[in-house]
Amino acid sequence: MNGKMKVGVLKSTGNIVFEEREIPQIKENEILVKIKHVGICGSDLHYYEYGRIGDFVVENPIVLGHESAGEVVAVGEKVADLKIGDLVTLEPGYTCGKCEFCKTGRYNLCPNVVFMATPPYDGAFAEYVAYPADMAFKLPDGMDTVQGALIEPLAVGIYAAQQGNAGLGQSAAILGSGCIGLVTLMALKAMGVTRIYVADVIEKRLAKAAELGATKVINAGEQDTVKTIMELTCGKGVDMVFETAGSKITTLQTAELVKRGGTVVLVGMAPESKLNYDIGKLMGKEASIKTVFRYRNIYPIAIEAVQNGLIPIDKIVTDTFSFDELPKAIRYSIDNKSDIVKAVIEFK
Amino acid sequence: MNGKMKVGVLKSTGNIVFEEREIPQIKENEILVKIKHVGICGSDLHYYEYGRIGDFVVENPIVLGHESAGEVVAVGEKVADLKIGDLVTLEPGYTCGKCEFCKTGRYNLCPNVVFMATPPYDGAFAEYVAYPADMAFKLPDGMDTVQGALIEPLAVGIYAAQQGNAGLGQSAAILGSGCIGLVTLMALKAMGVTRIYVADVIEKRLAKAAELGATKVINAGEQDTVKTIMELTCGKGVDMVFETAGSKITTLQTAELVKRGGTVVLVGMAPESKLNYDIGKLMGKEASIKTVFRYRNIYPIAIEAVQNGLIPIDKIVTDTFSFDELPKAIRYSIDNKSDIVKAVIEFK
Amino acid sequence: MNGKMKVGVLKSTGNIVFEEREIPQIKENEILVKIKHVGICGSDLHYYEYGRIGDFVVENPIVLGHESAGEVVAVGEKVADLKIGDLVTLEPGYTCGKCEFCKTGRYNLCPNVVFMATPPYDGAFAEYVAYPADMAFKLPDGMDTVQGALIEPLAVGIYAAQQGNAGLGQSAAILGSGCIGLVTLMALKAMGVTRIYVADVIEKRLAKAAELGATKVINAGEQDTVKTIMELTCGKGVDMVFETAGSKITTLQTAELVKRGGTVVLVGMAPESKLNYDIGKLMGKEASIKTVFRYRNIYPIAIEAVQNGLIPIDKIVTDTFSFDELPKAIRYSIDNKSDIVKAVIEFK
Amino acid sequence: MNGKMKVGVLKSTGNIVFEEREIPQIKENEILVKIKHVGICGSDLHYYEYGRIGDFVVENPIVLGHESAGEVVAVGEKVADLKIGDLVTLEPGYTCGKCEFCKTGRYNLCPNVVFMATPPYDGAFAEYVAYPADMAFKLPDGMDTVQGALIEPLAVGIYAAQQGNAGLGQSAAILGSGCIGLVTLMALKAMGVTRIYVADVIEKRLAKAAELGATKVINAGEQDTVKTIMELTCGKGVDMVFETAGSKITTLQTAELVKRGGTVVLVGMAPESKLNYDIGKLMGKEASIKTVFRYRNIYPIAIEAVQNGLIPIDKIVTDTFSFDELPKAIRYSIDNKSDIVKAVIEFK
Repeated sequence: MNGKMKVGVLKSTGNIVFEEREIPQIKENEILVKIKHVGICGSDLHYYEYGRIGDFVVENPIVLGHESAGEVVAVGEKVADLKIGDLVTLEPGYTCGKCEFCKTGRYNLCPNVVFMATPPYDGAFAEYVAYPADMAFKLPDGMDTVQGALIEPLAVGIYAAQQGNAGLGQSAAILGSGCIGLVTLMALKAMGVTRIYVADVIEKRLAKAAELGATKVINAGEQDTVKTIMELTCGKGVDMVFETAGSKITTLQTAELVKRGGTVVLVGMAPESKLNYDIGKLMGKEASIKTVFRYRNIYPIAIEAVQNGLIPIDKIVTDTFSFDELPKAIRYSIDNKSDIVKAVIEFK
Repeated sequence: MNGKMKVGVLKSTGNIVFEEREIPQIKENEILVKIKHVGICGSDLHYYEYGRIGDFVVENPIVLGHESAGEVVAVGEKVADLKIGDLVTLEPGYTCGKCEFCKTGRYNLCPNVVFMATPPYDGAFAEYVAYPADMAFKLPDGMDTVQGALIEPLAVGIYAAQQGNAGLGQSAAILGSGCIGLVTLMALKAMGVTRIYVADVIEKRLAKAAELGATKVINAGEQDTVKTIMELTCGKGVDMVFETAGSKITTLQTAELVKRGGTVVLVGMAPESKLNYDIGKLMGKEASIKTVFRYRNIYPIAIEAVQNGLIPIDKIVTDTFSFDELPKAIRYSIDNKSDIVKAVIEFK
Repeated sequence: MNGKMKVGVLKSTGNIVFEEREIPQIKENEILVKIKHVGICGSDLHYYEYGRIGDFVVENPIVLGHESAGEVVAVGEKVADLKIGDLVTLEPGYTCGKCEFCKTGRYNLCPNVVFMATPPYDGAFAEYVAYPADMAFKLPDGMDTVQGALIEPLAVGIYAAQQGNAGLGQSAAILGSGCIGLVTLMALKAMGVTRIYVADVIEKRLAKAAELGATKVINAGEQDTVKTIMELTCGKGVDMVFETAGSKITTLQTAELVKRGGTVVLVGMAPESKLNYDIGKLMGKEASIKTVFRYRNIYPIAIEAVQNGLIPIDKIVTDTFSFDELPKAIRYSIDNKSDIVKAVIEFK
Repeated sequence: MNGKMKVGVLKSTGNIVFEEREIPQIKENEILVKIKHVGICGSDLHYYEYGRIGDFVVENPIVLGHESAGEVVAVGEKVADLKIGDLVTLEPGYTCGKCEFCKTGRYNLCPNVVFMATPPYDGAFAEYVAYPADMAFKLPDGMDTVQGALIEPLAVGIYAAQQGNAGLGQSAAILGSGCIGLVTLMALKAMGVTRIYVADVIEKRLAKAAELGATKVINAGEQDTVKTIMELTCGKGVDMVFETAGSKITTLQTAELVKRGGTVVLVGMAPESKLNYDIGKLMGKEASIKTVFRYRNIYPIAIEAVQNGLIPIDKIVTDTFSFDELPKAIRYSIDNKSDIVKAVIEFK
């Protein structure tokens, strides 16, 4: 397909402008997707504000956005499973398939990954994206592209739950009730975890957690999270503790909250890499720490769960903007963090 | 507690009579339970009709019934976690705690087990039962003794699901929609399995499966189970196949239905021990077979799942009889197998 | 590299002839390997004798041989990890990297696999082979190409041991002491399995098992395998039973030999797909069946184990032939099955 | 058995004296063991020197020693598996068998455990010990009581290796080459781990590690451990890192050394409970932390491994003292830590 398209480009820190670019040409194994919805992720905001996340530095103009879904408008000659008109969601990490991590199914650890909207690779704030068909997942009947775009954050929650070895009848604490905390909550509930305590300092987020079925929400600004959860569990702690706030204080709380023999799952990354963690306490309980780096092999599961009504993923959307409003949407998201759970960009 | 109690005793094949016995004296680690509800299990019917199940032979009068719940009316001096007035469900297998199986947590394989209502041990068709406190599980607020009694069959379903390594977004076939098929269905749904196909030859049972959320029910008397499920899965088969009918034909179907790399879980035991199984087909798909012998470490999970509304276990009850009606209830259950999913005995 | 090479081609059943072909041209991700050693596998013999294995039918001339190692003589422009002069062993299955099985690390189940010497794909009985670099594994210092070629059968043994979840201090029975039985034995020993009973009907093979460290070898023509092993294990059976003989009788024995809670691993495929298997016995012990279809992610492990002296893989070689003798070697291998454990073709 | 016996009692910090006590009477499920060998553990020294380890405080005179083996001289009436004359090793933790941890096979987490030589329970520096038969393991033919006593520390090493999910062909770093480092080394080798780098600051210990088969030993006083191991692994790090030194510096190194997707196993406990650990680095690699609290279900495996020659456990013994020399042996062990790997007390 030939022609021009509109693209939102981060030209420099804090500066997103629209450009006209050529619609990308697809390779034989690719599809061309007319983008319909793209979620705004905290990492998009971080690159916008600071120009970097850890070792990933924005050195050239970049297109952000990696939570995307749209409609297939062209298919490469070797693409068998998708056709024009299909709605798809795009898994944003494209991996090599050849390294030891890919071959053992742990492709999220592939050192050769091309990840959308992570420097130097462009993302999905664009009218069209060309993408390898094997990482584009067809949305089944009944699913729309808002849900499709949100499969990406949901995948983090499901993967976190898997890393915690979540199962029927278990108990969990989720520290942080932002987008990742909430998708973790929904994933745990869908897997049969029965007691889920969610802590945050923002009431609006806690209200969302309560709406989504948290057993109890804890306003950490008013109550002592550790004390409250230990009382609720008769002093035993919980089978799994998920840290999703990415703060020092909550990361340190995980050693307190985890039950004897239980598992801490670290999802959020605190600004400080080194933390004065109570390793002795962890050892005295023979507890484990698992960590989450993106996700792997989750998209098909997440789509199943949403399609079958197990996970009402659209409920996390609090704000919708048109593509024309992209710069404003980003700015607004940064300025109103405590009012927004998830903002989504809608394309015409 | 002293006094007499009424007990239903299987004196000989097909002959249950009431007797008066001494209320049992409890040991220091035991509780005395006033029985409230006891489910009738297929094994009770089998002992009644045939006087044996495999190597277990009824040689002396025996009290049947092992799906029981009631109220604590006395506690031994070393019992700390239960008190008079608590409602409890009794896990019917009491194991040695000393053998290699017990020590590794696989206590269902303990060769020294004392299992209620399995010769030569008496069961729960009695007004009072003395039982070790560590195998009596308190029913939390909001749970009644009907639910409590049904924790036992539910435990089989949850354990079967665990043996199949059931997880979010997977697919399953359940062959047989009797009590065990239905509890397996409920367990799978609670764990997030999204596609569950249930086959049986009895419409009433299939209607119950549909009511409980089966993705599709298949009347195996009218449709070809294998053909139907293979079509529904685009020729791939399902991640997990649960055989719960205990018939030759369904056991043989499992090799057809399982997906490449998937798992067959055998729960029901066919009358013929040796079956002309398609091992070559299993190997060509690198599929596995797991088997289920009772269950282990499931009661706490099952209670959590029922209390939290994840599993509406009472829905499997189709018939209720008073304790006085026990002989009639057993007889009726044998004569009306296709009308009954689960019959329960209610004590005053 | 241009020029001609000599290739051994199976023209029709029982008829291998030498042909001259062009040396293959490599693609950018491939290497050209000058073949040094190729093992003769039972499947080579089977295609030679019968022209088919199950659904795989030889319809056109085919080059057999898939246990190969050689020297890199040319590298494609995108090959980074290998260089001219390196000795390599070739993993014979090349998979798509895109399907659900590849992405989850279970690439041995990839439906799109190109497997050497499996119709319609050519194998390694040729002076040169062009092969994707990511499936060519460099032999470290001290390893030669005889060992390299034997990594392939060894991979089956190691994978079988992994499927059985082999670990320190466990017990095992291996039924069949041919090449696959012996590599399984070596794998189990390297993993710390302490009691390994090996049964076969050919004394020469049993002598080899004894030499390689079997705890006890059983001549099944003279002794009752099941009775002997049950006596040796005080009636308990073994943690793992490996069927490698591919016979009906040994496959049926697995249900007898496995311990309560143990695992049967089926490696060999009996001529009859359907077998009158004692499923009831398996269930009474809550034992499992795992199956083996080729292997996955084993080459790096196998090379480590051989290089470090944990597995003396060359000891299974009983016969060596030059490439010129290929037709004779194949014929001889068929006619002298009981005298040969492993024959290897040596290239100049 | 009646009579008096000699017991070494820690009366107060730094003060062990011999007392005469009654030989203990056995219960029906117990055996009486005439002690033959008892290893001196670091925890014995710690109680002797400081009177406490963490929350465990010596408040009354206590008999130390928990690495013990001896001869059965009397058996309780319900003891079936042991007889007078058997040599046994005693697993020092006796657990309740009733709690959730015991029932799930994780008995090392039992809150009701009675652990030898841990206040307030007496240990094995005594001529006779009465012990529950199910935690006394018979030493098979060919094993002596020195080996028997050393099964205890070996169990820690095997369990640590299990927690790391050690397997054939993997790589490991062991930080600390004292007793626990060395038994971990032996366990890893027996399980087929091929590359094992051991770091310590004491040459004598490193020499022992080299003798026992470490791939490379690193004198951390002279070389940078992290730099050396990263070079040896081409910058990748190792699959498993075992911290056995119980020091701050080595615990912090684990985050550096672990490979992407790998596992840190914490065995030693540093004096400081809270450590400034690089959690960000761990997360960036999606690595895990497992911890070790004693061990569970290891004695039978350890005995198998020693009996079959896989683990030459006696090689860690550097010093032997008679029971009469107990006070001197303890004192000497404290004063000569860098010269002693393992001291053993020998009874007449």
